[in-house]
Amino acid sequence: MLSIQMNKEAIDALMNFMAYCKTEEKKIFLLCDKHTKTACLPILEKLTRHCFSDETICIPSGEVNKNIENCMSVWQHLLSKNADKQAVLLCLGGGVVCDLGGFAAATFKRGINHLLIPTTLMAQIDAAIGGKTALNFQQTKNQIGLFVPPVTTLVLPQFLQTLPEEEVLSGFAEMIKHALIADKTYWKKIKAIASWKQIIDNCLIKRSIEIKVAICNKDPKEQSERKKLNFGHTVGHAIEAYSLLDGKRPVAHGYAVALGMLAESYLSEKKGLISEEQLIEIKLFINKFFPIPKIEQKDYPLIIDLMQYDKKRKEKNLNFTLLTDIGSAIIDQQADENEIKLSLDFSLSE
Amino acid sequence: MLSIQMNKEAIDALMNFMAYCKTEEKKIFLLCDKHTKTACLPILEKLTRHCFSDETICIPSGEVNKNIENCMSVWQHLLSKNADKQAVLLCLGGGVVCDLGGFAAATFKRGINHLLIPTTLMAQIDAAIGGKTALNFQQTKNQIGLFVPPVTTLVLPQFLQTLPEEEVLSGFAEMIKHALIADKTYWKKIKAIASWKQIIDNCLIKRSIEIKVAICNKDPKEQSERKKLNFGHTVGHAIEAYSLLDGKRPVAHGYAVALGMLAESYLSEKKGLISEEQLIEIKLFINKFFPIPKIEQKDYPLIIDLMQYDKKRKEKNLNFTLLTDIGSAIIDQQADENEIKLSLDFSLSE
Repeated sequence: MLSIQMNKEAIDALMNFMAYCKTEEKKIFLLCDKHTKTACLPILEKLTRHCFSDETICIPSGEVNKNIENCMSVWQHLLSKNADKQAVLLCLGGGVVCDLGGFAAATFKRGINHLLIPTTLMAQIDAAIGGKTALNFQQTKNQIGLFVPPVTTLVLPQFLQTLPEEEVLSGFAEMIKHALIADKTYWKKIKAIASWKQIIDNCLIKRSIEIKVAICNKDPKEQSERKKLNFGHTVGHAIEAYSLLDGKRPVAHGYAVALGMLAESYLSEKKGLISEEQLIEIKLFINKFFPIPKIEQKDYPLIIDLMQYDKKRKEKNLNFTLLTDIGSAIIDQQADENEIKLSLDFSLSE
Repeated sequence: MLSIQMNKEAIDALMNFMAYCKTEEKKIFLLCDKHTKTACLPILEKLTRHCFSDETICIPSGEVNKNIENCMSVWQHLLSKNADKQAVLLCLGGGVVCDLGGFAAATFKRGINHLLIPTTLMAQIDAAIGGKTALNFQQTKNQIGLFVPPVTTLVLPQFLQTLPEEEVLSGFAEMIKHALIADKTYWKKIKAIASWKQIIDNCLIKRSIEIKVAICNKDPKEQSERKKLNFGHTVGHAIEAYSLLDGKRPVAHGYAVALGMLAESYLSEKKGLISEEQLIEIKLFINKFFPIPKIEQKDYPLIIDLMQYDKKRKEKNLNFTLLTDIGSAIIDQQADENEIKLSLDFSLSE
């Protein structure tokens, strides 16, 4: 079962864990990136009364750095400081630090413990919940990775106060997803949000985490139920990968997932799984927050090609999670190339 | 529980598995190295009536190639051939191919299945049994890795017929270890061996595998019981690592373990755990098969330094598995620098 702690409970848990490590003479290493080192580490140090006497490992910020080379630099640092199998890695950062740190810890000397302290909304409600670790490889996302849950994930709202709009919206896309696949009541609460400043809300964050935890606990290794969380991601990952190609304008993960949810809601409607009214309701809400990037139809084949690399794909077919209602989803649905092109048209239309 | 199959049962299991993969449209990739591609793949193809229609991935041979770069080339190959999560990796080779292949499979798309088909004696009775995968990193052995058991390990004696003396003796060191830590009766059988040509024996191989499987099943993640298998390896790994430094003459893993067992038997005797007669009995037998390399006393501090990097080390102390009798071992024993130097003297004396 996944362990997640929030707010004061999280700080107490961290303090207790650090005291335990001290008693047991376990070395604590803290992994951060250049951004969280200046923006978040001082906050954590203040919250924990400057208990971090051990080593800090810093990697460059940004998705492009979630690669094996930076993982190797973490291994190298641990090795150079004589980290043994009792060592612990605290990962303080967004998805990049949490995904890469979890992978580096799980593979160092056949596995040392790690704790996640996510600092972005997206990491707090998604990346740091569920035991997925990952690296990007050869221009494709999360191709390398493992399922290894952290000892615990500590969710501290203190880190979210200064997040810029784009970061908040990137996390919001996953919150919208949680509502659409699992909870109609939560969707109503989400729909009541009028401005991005209302998104950082303890109750909403808590509900999103609950939904993700419940699904992951049912199916930790993504063999069935957990695939529901891929809603929006087959198309979304491909749009994100496409946008990272040379000469394109990068689309952030959450923004790409928002477009992916529109495309996959369209497929849900075309297959008679949701009504046209529901599709329009979703489209209007998502378009209120997420801008539509310029992607020309001539690039659709390339985007569809990028879906081929998706981990969710089972040989030959493209696999989608679709909606059967607002608040309910079905996994392992197929769509052909023409349907996918039409869904891209829909998601990219004003 | 670990699955190991031998001889005809192994061939039948492989044929059935391949038929199952065909029905389920699972892609099979075969990993080998330059040596096993020419020496072993034709044997496997003959045994399985040329069922390998899928992809072969070939890495360079030798311990120095058990690194992250070759792991990346396996990932790259799988990715370029659109391997999905249902793909299977067959690893045909010695410790390098089995350790690296298992790691590459376990980390590709958060884990695809792998089967091990060990082709050396050492791999058949040790490396391919127990679910340890590993890469060398920064001149130190097996620093990166995971516990991920293969679907099954298939032990085929056909591959052992043409092994040179050095390869056979390298495996033999681990068989001696199995006897010394777990089975006095087996030690008597081992002691009856007069020439290296008698080592490749179905009954002996079977007994070694049984001992290793029983220990690993009790403690898959090496938290206690399994550490018994580290007998000879704290010193052995350090001698091996030392011998791989520039300008030195490489000592093969098994040969280094043989020396390590002498050193650690010496420590056992000095601590009053075994008798002097037992120590001499072990020394005489091991020296009959394993040559003593030239290592000068001035290099001892360097070798002891290399023990510091050993994964088995718990902060500050050097950890040893020692013998309490022939056929019985005790874990987590400490020794100081002076004792270790004396043990090296003993193991390197004629």
